[in-house]
Order: sequence, then structure tokens, then C-alpha cells
Amino acid sequence: MNFSEGRDQKVIDQIIAAITGVPHAILLHQQKDAAHHRSVVSFAGPPGAVEEAAVRATGKAAQLIDLNRHRGVHPRLGATDVVPFIPICDISLQECAQIAQRVGERIARDFGIPVYLYEAAATRPERKNLAEVRRGQFQGLREQILTDDSRAPDFGERKLHPTAGATIVGAREALIAFNVYLETEDLPLAREIARAVRQSGGGLKCVKALGLPIPERRQTQVSMNLLDYRVTPIHVAFDRVREEAARRGVKIASAELVGLVPRQALVDTAVRYLPIENFSPDLVLENRLQSLGLLAANHPCVSEFGSDETA
Amino acid sequence: MNFSEGRDQKVIDQIIAAITGVPHAILLHQQKDAAHHRSVVSFAGPPGAVEEAAVRATGKAAQLIDLNRHRGVHPRLGATDVVPFIPICDISLQECAQIAQRVGERIARDFGIPVYLYEAAATRPERKNLAEVRRGQFQGLREQILTDDSRAPDFGERKLHPTAGATIVGAREALIAFNVYLETEDLPLAREIARAVRQSGGGLKCVKALGLPIPERRQTQVSMNLLDYRVTPIHVAFDRVREEAARRGVKIASAELVGLVPRQALVDTAVRYLPIENFSPDLVLENRLQSLGLLAANHPCVSEFGSDETA
Repeated sequence: MNFSEGRDQKVIDQIIAAITGVPHAILLHQQKDAAHHRSVVSFAGPPGAVEEAAVRATGKAAQLIDLNRHRGVHPRLGATDVVPFIPICDISLQECAQIAQRVGERIARDFGIPVYLYEAAATRPERKNLAEVRRGQFQGLREQILTDDSRAPDFGERKLHPTAGATIVGAREALIAFNVYLETEDLPLAREIARAVRQSGGGLKCVKALGLPIPERRQTQVSMNLLDYRVTPIHVAFDRVREEAARRGVKIASAELVGLVPRQALVDTAVRYLPIENFSPDLVLENRLQSLGLLAANHPCVSEFGSDETA
Repeated sequence: MNFSEGRDQKVIDQIIAAITGVPHAILLHQQKDAAHHRSVVSFAGPPGAVEEAAVRATGKAAQLIDLNRHRGVHPRLGATDVVPFIPICDISLQECAQIAQRVGERIARDFGIPVYLYEAAATRPERKNLAEVRRGQFQGLREQILTDDSRAPDFGERKLHPTAGATIVGAREALIAFNVYLETEDLPLAREIARAVRQSGGGLKCVKALGLPIPERRQTQVSMNLLDYRVTPIHVAFDRVREEAARRGVKIASAELVGLVPRQALVDTAVRYLPIENFSPDLVLENRLQSLGLLAANHPCVSEFGSDETA
């Protein structure tokens, strides 16, 4: 879940307490970003627990966060801005979309917050795209929701919650949120690089990107979502940002992950970097041990772990 | 285990059958290299099973491989050349050294093959180093073992098995065997690069390296063992080979793993490449799920897997 509070840990802690107060809802990760004024909180569990925790966290955020006083570089519609449900194991994307619908309905009914469904839960083709749903942001949507039929929410009344705005709920596969810091404060240039990299600008497939100012680091940032790392791997996106920056005489300062990353995306990057011609997942020791049930065994386990034994 | 047969899969298959015929000895990986004329076979299991399988495989290799007719670019002493035991879980390196001693004793007694103990099982400081034990190779040791007291085996008589030579048995931590192909057939140059990279030449700590000819690819190879990837990570070794090659006007063609690789070595490489400033193992989704016991659960599992949701 994405909350519009990235500075006050006490606020985040209360939201997290609402989540972990639900039996079997397990916190995976939290991360706050002061420049974005936004936090990402990831949790997992059986569907009923995750559903209940998402509703309670949204209610708590509505009590604690006032969008009227929120200033951050990241676009947002609401106190709880985006709630994506992701299938991890033994559940389909379609079942996650049904969870999104139930959660959306409850958020609208219980808290008076209008809800838009997106991605796999979207009810209109144009709402699959999060950027389209969030167009105009909190301030812009406040007027449009009243007058523009295309902005009517999927659940709730046609007016924003006065302080908590609107919330976007959906289902999708795991994405990688990945920011690259540029050694320049030139925001138009960072935005130009972001446009060149993202799919909507004719760049890489399944990549969204924004150029953002990060004045406290005296840098800018290309903030990316990799929607399918099997289509555009993380290192391909990174290489493209680096190339587009280099062409404009700008260097990369560093990169950061926002939230969790599937392991395979990192392994793919290493295999490309080295570059290993004979790689297969079975060459990873732990993969083999796990698939054979050896890592879980309680008995002492020794390996005759070959290797070439060079001089 | 390292066997001096890298071309005839039927021979390898018979050796593997000797291993997998032992209950609870589980094959992890096999890989043969025609240029090296050498195969690596990795297996795991409880200590008794691994011990028994190693002895049987050595006996089978002695029946099938004749060192007198063996020509390959990789140094070797015996049909079964090197047998390293590696602790995987719930066992110490010292216990693996005891396994090496028992296996060495049985190989000498059952098959008349002299055995040298190395690394953590070594009985003399100079025998910790595999290259030192293998000095002179099969042909050279045939004379030296008779006359030179410093070459007396740890188990067995002071003469080589007529066709199976000698076998080197030991215990060590997991190493990464990693070959980098150079786009040159200039063997002295490949050897110069190998010397510059390896610890014994004043290069990288915990790195062994050889320059080898690979005429069928019209290339040469820097064949490396990374003895401790936490001391010298795989990408550091790769970068150094690339730099030393570039300084001599030579490019890298590709790289290959021989045997298995610990997952962390690949993750480290990705983190350095990208370069992710906020990385911790807890950012890897599967690590979190496993540490929380969620990946093993039988119930459907859904995640509210946050992330930044960029436009």
C-alpha cells in the first residue's frame, strides 16, 4: 500500500499497527521517502487477512493524513493512494482482482472515500493505467469528480473525502519500483530522460518513468516502475537511463529499490553482467537444494560440491 | 568430485549411477568439459551416504578411465582427481575433514590408489594448496612418489595406480569455479592475465587462476577458483580479468560457471552493477517470504506488495 506520509514515522507506525493487528497479516517491508512524502508498506497472508488489513489501514490513514496540507514530489490522489493486490502463491490474478473489488466497496462504504479500480480490477479500459486514474491529482480531481462523468468513481459518491481524497485499488503482478539518481539538478533534463525511457514515450516496454526533483541531495531522479521484469529486465532499464543520461553529459549517482524485488530480477542482472553463457537456475546451489527438499531437512547435510579446482 | 573424463557421457553416466545407487545420495549437478577433458559431479546428502557414494564413484572411475591415454588442458593426478567435501547445513568444516580422512583411507585400501589430503583435511601445511599437491601431474608424480619423501601419500603405498593415478581428497567451504573466455588465441597472454589476477601473482585475495588454450573456440580462457566470494566477489574477479585484458587490447568473449554457485554471489553482483544504495537481503521478496515461513504455507497467499506506482 502507498500512503501519502513519508516523513513522520509515528504516523506510519500507527498505520502498520492497524495492519499487523489482523491475525495472519504479516508485515513484509516498509519504506518511507521524505522527498516523495510517501511510504510503501508491503504485507502478505491469506486472502481474508490481507483484505481486512488493507481496509483497516485505509481507515487509519484517513484519520491521520490530511491531503490539503500534503506537499511531495510524487503524484497522489489520496491519503491511502494506491492499494495493489499481488498473487504470491496458490492464488490467481483474477482472485486478487475480486479482493480488490471487495476492499474497494468496503473503503467507500465504511470511510466515505471514493474508490477507483485499476489494472486487472479496472472496470473501464482507460482505468487499467494508474497514471490515467491519477490525472489531475487530489487538487484537480476535487472539481472534475463533480462534473466529469469519465471521472466517476467505481465505488462511493461523486465527491472526494475532504482530507483523505480518493483511493485507487487494484490487482497486478509484482512490479519493481526502481529509482535512479542523476548527478544533476536540471529537472527538465531528468524529465526528458524519463520520457525517453518509458513506454508511453516510445521507450522500453512495460516501463513507466517520471523525472523528479530531489533538491536535498542536489540531484534529480528517474523514478521507474518495471511492470514486467521478464519483458524489460531491471538491468536493461538501468542501462537505458545511463545511456540517455550519458548522451546528455550526465552521470548516474546511484539507484534504489522501493519496496521488494523478486530474486530472479537480481539473478538475471548478474548473469548479464558477468556474462555467463551457460546459466540456468539449476546452477544456483540453493535452488537445487530447495527443489530437492534438502535445505529443509533436519539431518546434517554434506555436499560433494564439485567445481573445477584450478591451480 | 572431479573426474578426468570430459567427452564420453557413457563413462560419466556409469560414475553417476554409482553415486545415485547409494540411498539418500542426491545428484545436484553434472558438467563435462571436452577441452579440459574433465567432469564435475556434485551431490549432497547425509554424511554416511555422501561418504559411501564418493568411495563407490572413485572405484567406478578407476575401472573406466586410463590416465595414460588422457590428454586435456586441465592439470590432473588421477582418474578421480579431486574430491572436496563441503558443509551445507548442520555440519562443520572439521566434520567434513573427518569424512575426507575416512574416504581417503578407504580409497587407498579398496582400490590401491594413493591418496593426498588437502585444504582443511591436509596433514602438512604445504598440502593445503591443491596446486602444490598436483605439481608434476600424473606423469611427473609417477617418478617422484617413489623417490621424494615430500611426495609420499597420506594413505596407500608410494606408487601410483597404473591407470587411475592418485586422488586428492579434502574439505573446504564452497568455492565458485568461474571461467572467462578471451577473444584471443594467444596463450602466453592469457597466462599473463591469469598471473596478474591470482593471489599467488600478487593479484586478488582468495583467487586462483590459470590461462588455458581453447583452440576449438579459437579462444583462450582464464579459469578461476574463487575460494571465498565474500573476500573477492565474483564481479570483482570478472572486472579485474576484463581490465587486465583491455590493457593488453583483448576483449572478453563470455564467461561460464563450472558447477554450482551460491545465490548470494549473484545477488551481490547485481547490487554492484545497478548500483543499489539501499540494498539489504530483506528487500528480496522470496527471502522475506521464506524467513516468515510464508512460501512453505499450503494456504493461498496474497500480498499487498507496495511499490511506488509511478506514472
